Amino acid sequence: MSIEKTLENFNELLAKYQSLHYACSTIHWDSATGAPRKGAQERAKTLGILSGEIHSILNSDEMVECIKELSANKDELDDITKSSLRLIKKEYDYTSKIPKDEYAKYCEAASISSRVWEEAKEQSNFELFRPHLEKVINFQKKFVEYRGFDKYKYNVLLDDFEPGMTIEILDEFFDTLRKRIVPLVKKITSSKKKINSAFAKEKFDIDKQKEYSEYLLHVIGFDFDAGMFRESMHPFTLNLNPYDVRITSHFYEDMLLSSVYSTIHEGGHALYEQDIDKKLSGTIAGTGVSMGIHESQSRTYENNLGRDYHFCKLIFPKLKEMFPEKLSDVSLQDFYEAVNESQPSLIRTEADELTYSLHIMVRYEIEKMIMNDEVEIKDLPQIWNEKMQEYLGLTPANDAEGVLQDVHWSDGSLGYFPSYALGSAYAAQFIHAMKKDLDLDSVLENGEMNKIQEWLTDKIHKYGSTKLPNDILKDVTGEGLNPNYYIEYLEDKYSKIYELN
Amino acid sequence: MSIEKTLENFNELLAKYQSLHYACSTIHWDSATGAPRKGAQERAKTLGILSGEIHSILNSDEMVECIKELSANKDELDDITKSSLRLIKKEYDYTSKIPKDEYAKYCEAASISSRVWEEAKEQSNFELFRPHLEKVINFQKKFVEYRGFDKYKYNVLLDDFEPGMTIEILDEFFDTLRKRIVPLVKKITSSKKKINSAFAKEKFDIDKQKEYSEYLLHVIGFDFDAGMFRESMHPFTLNLNPYDVRITSHFYEDMLLSSVYSTIHEGGHALYEQDIDKKLSGTIAGTGVSMGIHESQSRTYENNLGRDYHFCKLIFPKLKEMFPEKLSDVSLQDFYEAVNESQPSLIRTEADELTYSLHIMVRYEIEKMIMNDEVEIKDLPQIWNEKMQEYLGLTPANDAEGVLQDVHWSDGSLGYFPSYALGSAYAAQFIHAMKKDLDLDSVLENGEMNKIQEWLTDKIHKYGSTKLPNDILKDVTGEGLNPNYYIEYLEDKYSKIYELN
Repeated sequence: MSIEKTLENFNELLAKYQSLHYACSTIHWDSATGAPRKGAQERAKTLGILSGEIHSILNSDEMVECIKELSANKDELDDITKSSLRLIKKEYDYTSKIPKDEYAKYCEAASISSRVWEEAKEQSNFELFRPHLEKVINFQKKFVEYRGFDKYKYNVLLDDFEPGMTIEILDEFFDTLRKRIVPLVKKITSSKKKINSAFAKEKFDIDKQKEYSEYLLHVIGFDFDAGMFRESMHPFTLNLNPYDVRITSHFYEDMLLSSVYSTIHEGGHALYEQDIDKKLSGTIAGTGVSMGIHESQSRTYENNLGRDYHFCKLIFPKLKEMFPEKLSDVSLQDFYEAVNESQPSLIRTEADELTYSLHIMVRYEIEKMIMNDEVEIKDLPQIWNEKMQEYLGLTPANDAEGVLQDVHWSDGSLGYFPSYALGSAYAAQFIHAMKKDLDLDSVLENGEMNKIQEWLTDKIHKYGSTKLPNDILKDVTGEGLNPNYYIEYLEDKYSKIYELN
Repeated sequence: MSIEKTLENFNELLAKYQSLHYACSTIHWDSATGAPRKGAQERAKTLGILSGEIHSILNSDEMVECIKELSANKDELDDITKSSLRLIKKEYDYTSKIPKDEYAKYCEAASISSRVWEEAKEQSNFELFRPHLEKVINFQKKFVEYRGFDKYKYNVLLDDFEPGMTIEILDEFFDTLRKRIVPLVKKITSSKKKINSAFAKEKFDIDKQKEYSEYLLHVIGFDFDAGMFRESMHPFTLNLNPYDVRITSHFYEDMLLSSVYSTIHEGGHALYEQDIDKKLSGTIAGTGVSMGIHESQSRTYENNLGRDYHFCKLIFPKLKEMFPEKLSDVSLQDFYEAVNESQPSLIRTEADELTYSLHIMVRYEIEKMIMNDEVEIKDLPQIWNEKMQEYLGLTPANDAEGVLQDVHWSDGSLGYFPSYALGSAYAAQFIHAMKKDLDLDSVLENGEMNKIQEWLTDKIHKYGSTKLPNDILKDVTGEGLNPNYYIEYLEDKYSKIYELN
């Protein structure tokens, strides 16, 4: 077959593949934003059938032929096709190397395990969950063997979420964190600094909180003509293509700051997707390249920008204007300190910017031990609690607020957690580079958020998945992952807020 | 192949077919209820590809084989499979008899024609639209030839929307209407009765209108756990399955009654879909059987029940309670008369219950002439205006409020309009039968809407598409379409309101 004909077939298969993904995503969005309860079973059945169709396309003879032909003629391909080929090949390798019947058994086990995890968490009963966790993790280990690995099985899983990421890089990263952040957290815990954050626990009208969230999205540059903003139980971002990126936030009367920073966080994810080069729209490469880079963008907006003093100066007046009776006595400095208050806690999703990555470190170390066969599943609760005590100075009173708190492991998804910490580290490294081009303090104070967005678009967003994470990092900052930017950013910021010395 | 194996294949193909329809429907819903403007192009592309997949399943060798095998073994099939086979065969016949390239050309022409129609309506310029209308209608005529017809081409199109419907039946129906409703309308137009409906044109808060609409849906028995209620430009009902039926309404400050009766109308459609036997859920037969029967259910709720004095007595107190400052001086009798005010008008969608079917009669007569080659397209505006003058006593000042007002013909969809009038006639005939079992006045006054819903479910709703329209009619009322029930209902109701004699 001619290369032109192969390309035509390849693009036609990808268009179907993308359309089915688009359909599944729309159904997911619908499901999370109001679809009726009783429709859940038919919805799940439909998603199952559509996913099966995606799988069929991926494993069709035509697709295998295209992958073979195009891989043999890589030099003749344009950048988008090269990226599409890389991405689809990764998907294909995964599904083709694992025996179909074993994969089906895993899916069933994962589904049951997730359900049992929910129950176990409710009852704080790890023993109930243990056999299911063992089962899905054994599947994962076996799958990694099928897929092939060099030194560490865990590296295969890390690469799934962050192409190119390895234990070697992460060990160094977390070592630095352990050495410098753990002591910083201890200093802060014993500091005498009092932060006045009581105002943030008062009751703020939900509708007005939503209105403020919309204001924030306007401030950071979210394009409402190319996106939607809704409410859901858990905040999330869903991207159909750069012209259609949806985000949600959650709203509780007595958790004002939670809605504010969840919205900005998801807004950061959304800007990444909306700003991808439009020529990638509809292609498989037309989305963010990795979990880590994605999280770097949400965290840049949520933390590095969103919790910066000058950004607070920009957004606080509107908040005061909307809630005069609650905030008249609250100063900008109070607000700034409140949004940066740090206190070790047991639950990852509620952790502050400083202690967050220590929660990830606990999970990383345990995941590594699991994949290296250095731990038995039955011992996880104890190990978890020991590490929490060591790094955060707290021991969970029960497993619900300990090892059972996160959903991720319940279907065997190991390797995902590190992306969160990487995101924070990438963010600090990107911001360091950004400061060479922009006077960030004045840009933030003046609300020239478009300058930041343009910078990020030009350096990161526009590429979608056509550049690998580490190449982006190197091209933008001149080096690979360097945890020092992150550590220094945290040390500098929190020493000042907590008046350490 | 064994019949068991064939059935297995058939059900698998149908499950895929249904899942793709589910996906398209969800994308349509999403599109009408907030999806971002800039995503429209990718959305259309995706729908195009998914529709292509539906088409491929329908025309696959496997499907053809299944249809052939099962048709040859009809007696061995259960009711659901029999209905599914009938429905899929109809779809298949349509797509398989029309040459693929001609169908593609028609789709393109229809899409352009619809766009031009919009422009032509805006400019009130029929000449702009004329060549496109001619083109799509010529396609329709040719397609009917491919599909095969007996005496009248138009019967083929009527049957598409209302299985079993023919010119013969409709001629008789509209003859009776012409003879008895046209004079009634003239009498009312010259009656001295004054109806006090000014209150309904005042400004009513939109959010409160929405709240009242939700109240109405609760009253009639809409299951919010198996459905959603939202706002959109044009009210519509979308059903994924009996567990997931969505409706919209529209809201304007100075059109209170429009939102009230649009909501009840769509609510009637929704009850039909929600009350279909759950064993049909997910099957191709698990939806309303025809446009006419569907419209009979929405009109039963909107008109026969919704505009009944006793129903007004049930729902008016809540409205008064919600808008005391606007409605304190309005009596129940005022409200009842206002919701039944009749006045000939030019626009079908704004017509009242009495004059509505005359608008349909105009369209029916013209469609019949078109399909019988008894008229040239260029003469439609004049014929339209003459008929409007004859039946409604009004002549449109321009084609925008005349022949150009409706979207239906723009893509060649002839045969659809009669369903609206049939719906009203069926409704009156069903209500006549219902009154033998239920004391409707007291049921309505006491808000025992569940009794009505149970009756309709038992006689009509539960069957989905497993019974043909005329069989439903005969089983429920003991006879086929009989326009007298409808005419007598209108004569009786309007003579009283307008104090004719």
